[in-house]
Amino acid sequence: TMAVPKATQDLLTPAFVVDLPKVKKNAQVMMDRFKKLGVQLRPHMKTHKTIEGGDIMTNGTRRCIVVSTLAEASFYAEHGYDDILYAYPLPFDKVKKCAELSEHLSLFHVLVDSLAALEQLRSCPLSTGKVWHVWLKLDCENGRAGVPYSDPAALNLAKAISGSQGIELTGVYAHCGNTYHCTGEHEIKAVAQATTTATLEFMEKLKTAGIPCPKSSIGSTPSCSHPVSDMTLLSEVHPGNYIFYALDVQQSVIGSCKMEDIAVRVLTRVIGHYTHRNQLLVDCGWAALSLDSRGCLPTGYAVIEGHPELKLLSMTQEHGRIEPISGKLDFDKFPLGSLLYIIPYHACATAAMHPVYFVQSENKIVDTWKPVRGW
Amino acid sequence: TMAVPKATQDLLTPAFVVDLPKVKKNAQVMMDRFKKLGVQLRPHMKTHKTIEGGDIMTNGTRRCIVVSTLAEASFYAEHGYDDILYAYPLPFDKVKKCAELSEHLSLFHVLVDSLAALEQLRSCPLSTGKVWHVWLKLDCENGRAGVPYSDPAALNLAKAISGSQGIELTGVYAHCGNTYHCTGEHEIKAVAQATTTATLEFMEKLKTAGIPCPKSSIGSTPSCSHPVSDMTLLSEVHPGNYIFYALDVQQSVIGSCKMEDIAVRVLTRVIGHYTHRNQLLVDCGWAALSLDSRGCLPTGYAVIEGHPELKLLSMTQEHGRIEPISGKLDFDKFPLGSLLYIIPYHACATAAMHPVYFVQSENKIVDTWKPVRGW
Repeated sequence: TMAVPKATQDLLTPAFVVDLPKVKKNAQVMMDRFKKLGVQLRPHMKTHKTIEGGDIMTNGTRRCIVVSTLAEASFYAEHGYDDILYAYPLPFDKVKKCAELSEHLSLFHVLVDSLAALEQLRSCPLSTGKVWHVWLKLDCENGRAGVPYSDPAALNLAKAISGSQGIELTGVYAHCGNTYHCTGEHEIKAVAQATTTATLEFMEKLKTAGIPCPKSSIGSTPSCSHPVSDMTLLSEVHPGNYIFYALDVQQSVIGSCKMEDIAVRVLTRVIGHYTHRNQLLVDCGWAALSLDSRGCLPTGYAVIEGHPELKLLSMTQEHGRIEPISGKLDFDKFPLGSLLYIIPYHACATAAMHPVYFVQSENKIVDTWKPVRGW
Repeated sequence: TMAVPKATQDLLTPAFVVDLPKVKKNAQVMMDRFKKLGVQLRPHMKTHKTIEGGDIMTNGTRRCIVVSTLAEASFYAEHGYDDILYAYPLPFDKVKKCAELSEHLSLFHVLVDSLAALEQLRSCPLSTGKVWHVWLKLDCENGRAGVPYSDPAALNLAKAISGSQGIELTGVYAHCGNTYHCTGEHEIKAVAQATTTATLEFMEKLKTAGIPCPKSSIGSTPSCSHPVSDMTLLSEVHPGNYIFYALDVQQSVIGSCKMEDIAVRVLTRVIGHYTHRNQLLVDCGWAALSLDSRGCLPTGYAVIEGHPELKLLSMTQEHGRIEPISGKLDFDKFPLGSLLYIIPYHACATAAMHPVYFVQSENKIVDTWKPVRGW
């Protein structure tokens, strides 16, 4: 109901601001990298959940994406996207909706990591001559979803998928989320290598066992920002966060990007001076930033751009407390109503708090993007 | 775009489920308590941010509420609410919108804690013969916004407000958020007493100085759940979280409610069995629960209803890892696809993650509520 101002500095705060040239650059670098390596890039939509972001990441093709929720899958399908991989352990309450998407789209992929999930697909055959396109989720030491790569159950599951009527084993999918615990390029590459090796060895096992499976994919923004050469032997990769890049302090700390690649900020205003406790208040609370990072940075919950001397000490729903890391705060430098740019620790978590993103280019607001929410 | 099922158990998960009879009871208890004490209840909307929740808390009057964002103020105003207090340190970017609301509504209140904020109001006189209704924010040891109650600046600010053309000093407002650091009724009452005493002493100072100021208000759900007798000398109180109660584990831990008063749950489904690491996965990640609590409970990030033996160990965006507090997990008790109810640590933070609330009565979905988001 409110008009969007033309200049970033006129936005009502807090506001989630996306730097369009940086987003485009981050997307282009990732596309170029994997084009050169001859590996299909299947970008993940979960960080931004917008059509506009998807268009940039797919270079306008609206094909070949990953999503983490059924709400995203439906949203992208409704906007003309296709070849959508719903990379989430098949939820039993959503099988019917997945069947509808499979029947409606040219290519809709689901993911399973158990015989029980496969049984759900068997009990829900597709009409219109379609087959279920199934990816087997392999856990390569990430420790979340997936069958452990060394567990004989993995091969048994592949065999069962492949041998099921109306069901095709399309690929093997591994997420190396454990790259997020790395520090620096060397550690990231070690995890990327281990995940790639485990995935490729499993593909060999499938081949030896005579189980057809055309595709293999691993992902995570850190690993895809520092790919190892064996990754050229994979069919696909599926990073996502790199659009805002690898765009967050977390990625910068672990070494997958530089601070200047980070494409998102929370714009906030100073709303209070509290000289007796040497603190400012800003209008960015956890409702605008999230509590991700748990305050672990030297600068607290986030980084305040251009002010390495400041710490975002704590937040309540709509208030953020800022104080200097040491010494007395010079309040004259931060008048009431003045602007600060907060670089979030984790772009996915911060984006999730915002119903609209304000897209800027050189401090002009050029667009607004509305993400899909819910499940 | 999806039809809402009739039974709670048929909801797609994760889903934020509100128990309507509990909400109504919690609201009624608070209304009855302050009616009996002769103190005006001005409920805060920030926990739920819905029209339906506001209707229950105001007993259908749509009058006399508090909000924390301009988006809430506009939303409630558009739905026929009036006598709205925007209890947030006047943000300089929103003065013009506040003026519009002041001119449009019978009664719109703003809050200031600095001469600079007052100056903003002076520079923006209201038309249509209206005056700005201003509350002075007093900090009674909470340490967030407000002028410290013992600081001479507080009286000076009151004098300046009261002496300004077109501006009325309507009240003194204190938030005892420090009750959230209490354990048990005794500590809560001590903070409630200290806040009340500081506020009433300041009202006496105003009287002595000849500064007219009709109203005084303190709030927080813990203090209003265990009011001290001196609170009857206040004009108003402004708790909010009690609708879901004081409805969350945090409130239960600190002693402002019992576990059975908690009116909200996140409904989640088991999506994975990982016997090799003695863990379940559920489809409730931080996108559905928030990271509030930071995992500090004996049961991790939340309480799993009916299962004190389980711990919500960690979450990523869409996955939650559950393991037993000790011993081996009996996976047969938690089949893939089966439901669990997660009681959030902090209802405000969890509600903020959901674009729609599913409202149930005796396991039947009777309504859906859509909160206002943004700023």
